[in-house]
Amino acid sequence: MTVYNFSAGPAVLPKPVLEMAQKEMLDYRGSGMSVMELSHRSSEFDEIIKAAELRLRELMAIPDNYKVLFLQGGASLQFSMIPLNLAKKSKKAYYIVGGSWGKKAYTEAVKLSKTIDFDPQLLASSEDTVYNHIPTFDSKTIDKEAAYVHLTTNNTIEGTTIYDLPDTNGVPIVADMSSNILAVRYRVADFGMIYAGAQKNIGPAGVTIVIIRDDLLNDTPVLSSMLDYRIQADNGSLYNTPPTYGIYIARLVFDYVASLGGVDAMETKNVEKATLLYDFIDKSEFYSNPVSVKADRSICNIPFVTPSDELDKLFNKEALEHDFKNIKGHRSVGGMRASIYNAFPLEGVQELVAFMKAFEERNKG
Amino acid sequence: MTVYNFSAGPAVLPKPVLEMAQKEMLDYRGSGMSVMELSHRSSEFDEIIKAAELRLRELMAIPDNYKVLFLQGGASLQFSMIPLNLAKKSKKAYYIVGGSWGKKAYTEAVKLSKTIDFDPQLLASSEDTVYNHIPTFDSKTIDKEAAYVHLTTNNTIEGTTIYDLPDTNGVPIVADMSSNILAVRYRVADFGMIYAGAQKNIGPAGVTIVIIRDDLLNDTPVLSSMLDYRIQADNGSLYNTPPTYGIYIARLVFDYVASLGGVDAMETKNVEKATLLYDFIDKSEFYSNPVSVKADRSICNIPFVTPSDELDKLFNKEALEHDFKNIKGHRSVGGMRASIYNAFPLEGVQELVAFMKAFEERNKG
Repeated sequence: MTVYNFSAGPAVLPKPVLEMAQKEMLDYRGSGMSVMELSHRSSEFDEIIKAAELRLRELMAIPDNYKVLFLQGGASLQFSMIPLNLAKKSKKAYYIVGGSWGKKAYTEAVKLSKTIDFDPQLLASSEDTVYNHIPTFDSKTIDKEAAYVHLTTNNTIEGTTIYDLPDTNGVPIVADMSSNILAVRYRVADFGMIYAGAQKNIGPAGVTIVIIRDDLLNDTPVLSSMLDYRIQADNGSLYNTPPTYGIYIARLVFDYVASLGGVDAMETKNVEKATLLYDFIDKSEFYSNPVSVKADRSICNIPFVTPSDELDKLFNKEALEHDFKNIKGHRSVGGMRASIYNAFPLEGVQELVAFMKAFEERNKG
Repeated sequence: MTVYNFSAGPAVLPKPVLEMAQKEMLDYRGSGMSVMELSHRSSEFDEIIKAAELRLRELMAIPDNYKVLFLQGGASLQFSMIPLNLAKKSKKAYYIVGGSWGKKAYTEAVKLSKTIDFDPQLLASSEDTVYNHIPTFDSKTIDKEAAYVHLTTNNTIEGTTIYDLPDTNGVPIVADMSSNILAVRYRVADFGMIYAGAQKNIGPAGVTIVIIRDDLLNDTPVLSSMLDYRIQADNGSLYNTPPTYGIYIARLVFDYVASLGGVDAMETKNVEKATLLYDFIDKSEFYSNPVSVKADRSICNIPFVTPSDELDKLFNKEALEHDFKNIKGHRSVGGMRASIYNAFPLEGVQELVAFMKAFEERNKG
């Protein structure tokens, strides 16, 4: 039986990437060294990080006035770095909270505001309906002088997505794109900053991508050099030793995505996979998707439930026996969740639908 | 010609570890998934991180009242996290600066003290002699109420080591052990906290080990959850997605070190390698080691110079042609530096000495 890994992250990686990593493990392209053994100041690694950046710029059509950084700490560390760097003294920063991770971003901003003088504002939230849609708001309420508006493009846990960016009254958008970067096409110029943990659509956990518009880089140092976008940018992500092996894998993934036709091709394929699953769920009277607004549905993370908690439990048990790994929903919401990022194959979704059909037949009572 | 990698970090890894990683790249022990694809909440990864911790506890004989954390950001992020967590309001924190990295630790503390109310003090420094020895000080000058005394056990760039810990008047020692952890035996109970970037003696860049005594964990939250030792400890290093693949490699390295007899066996082997090189340098009238106090010499990083900058340059050029990689000294000090960590083979040192002899013959004028 083929193993299908529905993990929300760390997630499935393209097989050709893993095969290349395997091949090069003890000898990176004739260097006699593993990539893990390369000095981050060596010509070999210099080529890797520059090629990774170049390919990402190509894939996302990143304009020249944006810096690309390879950092550590995941999106969670960005939750603090963003206000630390971007929220100028006493200025407002807005948060659109459409899911658990957006809530965490806001909570960290509030925590930081007890030490650093800025004013995080909850602009909109759908928490009262368990984040079953993307919250809306009146853009006229936004102070034009605010530092930024933070949003999450794809809510990994709840399975919702912002496809069309909201009007923010001219204030730069800072976006956590961790779970749909390279899977859905966005226009980078519409953002002030984009960040993403690698472990969903890019590579192994431990690399964080930051794409930031030049003019948003801080002019005065923040309290820690490691947390300072300006210092990281001025040092080409080599202020200290970066996560070299993760950057190497990311580079292989970027090359792989390019070889398949880039982000637009990925999006087409992802829409096809997601449509297959959503159509099946919508036709079924047994399964349902908890997202209340169809236009907000994610093509990357698709949560669903059966008619009861008991059947959800049984589904998860039998799915695991069928070698469907990590399909259990996030502990905060329960049910099931199929995370079907770029590297997840169509055949896996087809097999899941077949399995769901058979499960329904056995259990519809 | 065999490639010998003298890199100070990322550095050479044990070949059996790389071979195992290669073998398991596409299928971790029958899971059908790469370790990079494992959810950090999966039973497979749970086993990996727990085994890694257990083995490290065994190797270093870490007492039960110490937590072991697997973090991100390298030693450089610790430079800020340490005072943020440990320096209680307005209390003093002392810095012993025996090298460039210790200086950075102190500089970051000073930077942070502009925002956070604490008082970093330079206790001792050997900067005026280009860090050619470990600086000493009078322990009676230390305020017993201070939060900690920070030191670097091994100065990677300058090639000096603190083998016997100084008297700190009862104040806990916080040590950057990045470049000689697992290579030299220390007694963990002599420290309040030990930290180390992985990329020298442990594994790939992107993992940072923190070993901290229970009672030093902060009782009040710091300004960012990701920078909070208490939160990281309470979540078993899984507050957010940790650098899973790096932790897996670290686990393989720990197992490898244990299979060779543990830290004491490593130290014996490292002393043998270092003695070979130091003895040769000391007998030579051509080469010299810049460290002024022999007892302070590092067995992990051995800097040396020829009689002139021109000859250093020539040495570095010819060494590279001989497939001695990364033997060039750090850009801040010049000359050469042989980093010969645990995974660096004795044969490599023997070959280096033979090469140095031949180079001397050709160039002694």
